[in-house]
Amino acid sequence: MAAPAVPPPEPLARGQRQRLLLRLLRHPGQRQAKRLLLRLHPADIAELFALLTPGEQQALLGVLLELRLAARTLRELGSETQRQVLALTPDAQLADMLARLPPPDVVDLLRELHEERREAVLALFEPSLAARVRNLLRYGEATAGGLMNPDVSSFSGELTAGEAVVRLRQLAEERRLFYLYVTDERRHLLGIVSLWALVTAASESTLRELMTRDVVTVRVDLPEEDVAQVFGRYDLLVVPVIDEDGRLVGSISVDDVLDVVEEAATEDLYRLVNLNTHETLATPPPQSVRLRLPWLFVNLTTALAGASVVGLFLGTIEKYAVLAMFLPIVAGLGGNAGTQTLTLMVRGFALGELDLHEGSRVLRRQTLIGTMNGFVAGAALALISWVWEQNLLISASLWIAGTVNFTVAGLMGAAVPLLLRRLKLDPALGSSIFVTTATDVGGFLSFLGTATLLLGSFS
Amino acid sequence: MAAPAVPPPEPLARGQRQRLLLRLLRHPGQRQAKRLLLRLHPADIAELFALLTPGEQQALLGVLLELRLAARTLRELGSETQRQVLALTPDAQLADMLARLPPPDVVDLLRELHEERREAVLALFEPSLAARVRNLLRYGEATAGGLMNPDVSSFSGELTAGEAVVRLRQLAEERRLFYLYVTDERRHLLGIVSLWALVTAASESTLRELMTRDVVTVRVDLPEEDVAQVFGRYDLLVVPVIDEDGRLVGSISVDDVLDVVEEAATEDLYRLVNLNTHETLATPPPQSVRLRLPWLFVNLTTALAGASVVGLFLGTIEKYAVLAMFLPIVAGLGGNAGTQTLTLMVRGFALGELDLHEGSRVLRRQTLIGTMNGFVAGAALALISWVWEQNLLISASLWIAGTVNFTVAGLMGAAVPLLLRRLKLDPALGSSIFVTTATDVGGFLSFLGTATLLLGSFS
Repeated sequence: MAAPAVPPPEPLARGQRQRLLLRLLRHPGQRQAKRLLLRLHPADIAELFALLTPGEQQALLGVLLELRLAARTLRELGSETQRQVLALTPDAQLADMLARLPPPDVVDLLRELHEERREAVLALFEPSLAARVRNLLRYGEATAGGLMNPDVSSFSGELTAGEAVVRLRQLAEERRLFYLYVTDERRHLLGIVSLWALVTAASESTLRELMTRDVVTVRVDLPEEDVAQVFGRYDLLVVPVIDEDGRLVGSISVDDVLDVVEEAATEDLYRLVNLNTHETLATPPPQSVRLRLPWLFVNLTTALAGASVVGLFLGTIEKYAVLAMFLPIVAGLGGNAGTQTLTLMVRGFALGELDLHEGSRVLRRQTLIGTMNGFVAGAALALISWVWEQNLLISASLWIAGTVNFTVAGLMGAAVPLLLRRLKLDPALGSSIFVTTATDVGGFLSFLGTATLLLGSFS
Repeated sequence: MAAPAVPPPEPLARGQRQRLLLRLLRHPGQRQAKRLLLRLHPADIAELFALLTPGEQQALLGVLLELRLAARTLRELGSETQRQVLALTPDAQLADMLARLPPPDVVDLLRELHEERREAVLALFEPSLAARVRNLLRYGEATAGGLMNPDVSSFSGELTAGEAVVRLRQLAEERRLFYLYVTDERRHLLGIVSLWALVTAASESTLRELMTRDVVTVRVDLPEEDVAQVFGRYDLLVVPVIDEDGRLVGSISVDDVLDVVEEAATEDLYRLVNLNTHETLATPPPQSVRLRLPWLFVNLTTALAGASVVGLFLGTIEKYAVLAMFLPIVAGLGGNAGTQTLTLMVRGFALGELDLHEGSRVLRRQTLIGTMNGFVAGAALALISWVWEQNLLISASLWIAGTVNFTVAGLMGAAVPLLLRRLKLDPALGSSIFVTTATDVGGFLSFLGTATLLLGSFS
């Protein structure tokens, strides 16, 4: 049994292949281009699309259709390019392409179309596929039902390993099947058998003997973030999906969940800084401006609350203009501290580390952290102002303001997301604006209030 | 072939089981507790630990050792509790527990120990395991080498499917093996065969005939974030890991990468708000304060830059105290806009959507978005101030300041992470502080500068 002594050929680097392909596509060299395309992963071909003109896109799409790579490439395109390419493709061609993809991907792409066009394309599908796709379209996009592959074969527990292998051979195409689902005749899930267990078992053992009964399942209506938590918690590769009656309706693979985790984290981040979750670096400037303006105006309106507080003390500022220097510092430090607590809360919810019933303990703790940090930061600020101004009363006001401001930051940074969550809203949505407004008002009121009192009484 | 008509028993909900277990552990009822423990997933048992006193933890650990669940539970503990439990466990017991875990998990846990204790525990391992673990410890924690499982069996291409199945049966324990790696005698990777292909193939086909040659691999020294990107890009379930000579050294499964994705996103978020990545909601307040103070002082120091700019215009503020009201608004809006661009940049890098050579295009675009948003926000601010004060000169200053401030925000929000990345530093680390300082200085200078000029000349 001689194994070959030759090492595998060094694969051409991804970027190199892409640049070569681009050149070949732009010049007469289609045969070479085709050979190269067949060696590229659809994800890499998809990346090329963004660099092409609409005319070149159409040409490449034609070649991909011929090579039967069009559908898989379409699936990998960024949402902007995807919409363009979908618009370029005639209905019949589109229906033909989509029929090659697994149903969940078909559904994802159909959701990008207007309802009328979606119906037109669905009408061109083979009836059984159309029915399966329609069935999936009923589920919410962001639920287990929207993620799952509904094409799961189920097996009877009385089947022997040998019989199961024969049945597997009959299943037409190669799929990523790593577990067999054992169900009763009403498709209630009884257990699972890993392909590994099947391969290494004696061929006369029944699936019932081989199966694991303690199976983690998810309900078809579970939100996708919760599905991701189940995978992360139990280190699973696939999870069977069951309906409200415990019947097997599909299966989710961990690689489908990877995108969910990434998107959920990105959304948390975007909401914390009040960005629309649809904006990316590729968003054209006019659209970006349109997406950002609504929150900008909310921010502007709430910022007036802080400004009004300053407005109450204009008399003091006229006499001691130096106080104005410290206003941005007070606001900046408090805002930063509030956002820190907010970030911990939002990630705590997202990672499943925070339960609502722990709310009051977390609230107390974050407030205490705020007070402690504020006491130290206020002292530092007082010291700096002393070096600058040598006015003991201003220094004292800053110390008090720092402590109050950070306390408010800890309190509100924890309270606002807890409240939003209790109201069943996204704990990150707009919360940074509320928190910053609170720290502004608290900080200015304590700083200018104390300063007015002290400077009025003692100087 | 009659399938059972009985639906599977409703599983006891996780929370219910945990509460019951807690009661059983605290009262004499060990036998029941053991039965229940065997039905819980180690991740759920791990969650209980945080609720127990050190004495109770030790008692539970004893029971778990007896049930051979201790090692798997230890792996699931939060880092804080994990450290406590590791400290409680004698070396011999610890070595015994660890030997039950796959080598990557052993390495993760050993990294939590001080070097001296680590060596002591390693000395108690069986020599071949100790050697494998030492080998893994050489790789960086955050690389493919730190993630991979080095226990991969490799197969010769001349083996038939039938012979391969026989060899699989000889591999002692059940593992999550879904692909066979085909290598030459020097362990150079030639291709992979999925278990599915093996099961459904004719038993006399050779692995060489069955194998897929175009395999995505990762180098053992690839950073773990890049490994995660490879999985996300190509929708893979496992990736073989090769060394610098193309030899197979291990394998990474997608479920190991799920944690990496989640952690990477959380770290980006934390760095953007200048939180230490080790802080959680469970961090005790004194430690939290210690973790936050260093950045707080950096923040304080850079905030003085903004304050100094205000200090240059105290004469103007003495005469027009109303200007002080708008200082926090100018600072707040600019800081927010800068953080938005920063967030887009950091996520762009993290998701692999942003290449360094696109830097200048992104920079121009974000600056333009800033200018456009600033023009609108400045106009709104001017209008509000007009309603409030009816001073045309102040309104004009605010309009100019808004435009300048947002332009600086877009420019610096893009430039700072690009620069950090070019210097091979984390683009999120500390960048928000630089950006906010820049928007403060730019905003105050343009606002108070213009106001001083206009109010001095025209009123």
